Amino acid sequence: MRGLLIAFEGIDGSGKSSQAVLLKDWIEMRRDVYLTEWNSSEWIHDIIKEAKKKNMLTSITFSLIHATDFSDRYERYILPMLKSGFVVICDRYVYTAYARDVVRNVDFDWVKRLYSFAIKPNFTFYIRVTPEIALERIRKAKRKIKPQEAGIDILGEIPLEEGFLKYQSRIVEIYDKIAKEESNFITIDGNRPLKDVQIDIRKILGEYIDNSL
Amino acid sequence: MRGLLIAFEGIDGSGKSSQAVLLKDWIEMRRDVYLTEWNSSEWIHDIIKEAKKKNMLTSITFSLIHATDFSDRYERYILPMLKSGFVVICDRYVYTAYARDVVRNVDFDWVKRLYSFAIKPNFTFYIRVTPEIALERIRKAKRKIKPQEAGIDILGEIPLEEGFLKYQSRIVEIYDKIAKEESNFITIDGNRPLKDVQIDIRKILGEYIDNSL
Repeated sequence: MRGLLIAFEGIDGSGKSSQAVLLKDWIEMRRDVYLTEWNSSEWIHDIIKEAKKKNMLTSITFSLIHATDFSDRYERYILPMLKSGFVVICDRYVYTAYARDVVRNVDFDWVKRLYSFAIKPNFTFYIRVTPEIALERIRKAKRKIKPQEAGIDILGEIPLEEGFLKYQSRIVEIYDKIAKEESNFITIDGNRPLKDVQIDIRKILGEYIDNSL
Repeated sequence: MRGLLIAFEGIDGSGKSSQAVLLKDWIEMRRDVYLTEWNSSEWIHDIIKEAKKKNMLTSITFSLIHATDFSDRYERYILPMLKSGFVVICDRYVYTAYARDVVRNVDFDWVKRLYSFAIKPNFTFYIRVTPEIALERIRKAKRKIKPQEAGIDILGEIPLEEGFLKYQSRIVEIYDKIAKEESNFITIDGNRPLKDVQIDIRKILGEYIDNSL
């Protein structure tokens, strides 16, 4: 594989998407780069959205529809681009599925096996923030919490902010577990200004980006 | 589980769907019965159809989208109905996925693990016919061979009848392998008149259907 695969993981409001975009801007001046988001396969995306709205997905189906979306992007974009030497940045990778499925009581080993077709990233930046900080940021940005960010399908109709804190805490627990298991995980303290976080990331990546691999 | 799970497997043109319907008619007079077909989940079905038309599914994605459809039907219909005592007849079950995925070079163990959430049928009737007999029946019925029945996505644009024989032969090979491994498989010689096949099936099931389980 000639390219470089970089993943970003973290809870909603962790700032990981902003970090991914900032990193893309920086790499763009040095290497061919491609950024891909979770749940973005053209033909599956709408289906997931509809199904989520109706809250009709059971755990395994929830898991499989996301795996389908990922697999489609993986085989048609991520893998071919890596093969042709791109730096591929994934805003969420298989670990998002691990975390979201496991909080829905799907067997951890089953999910891991499900995604075993996907290669491990060279670097996974886990932007770790407390759910409280994440909520604070969402409030400041005056954006609404989405029902799925509050785990409405598993916690039911509790106030969104309460749901957010509960649901995201569970996700953090699983991320922390994965971080211990996966050697490609680099935990970055995300409870800091955007710029400081980005500086850390660029420092770590520096030599890999500047030298053609 | 109070109900009874009966699956039908076999290549296209094996007559397995007719057998499933005939069996349903018979059971209906004795027990609550529910018949479900492969690829029939309302909200996923259209997507699969579109994707197949465009021939845009890679192997793993092909596998996962079908697993999603199955999982949706399994969790929302098959399992609840079994729990409430229905006889559930599946026109194709997970073994169809095994066969179709494996001919597309998906790892056999991966597929088995993927479907490990699904319980084993009490009976799986494998209606075994030669691809030649199946083709003969399709010809007699004056129905067109569908491109996917000729494995167009893996064999390419060869004449449909030639593709049908090649593709279905590979499927038979895998079914035969599964039949040896799975204790719930009952291989039925399907190279015989519909009525004779159905008589065999009803004989085998007789005592299970007449006595409430």
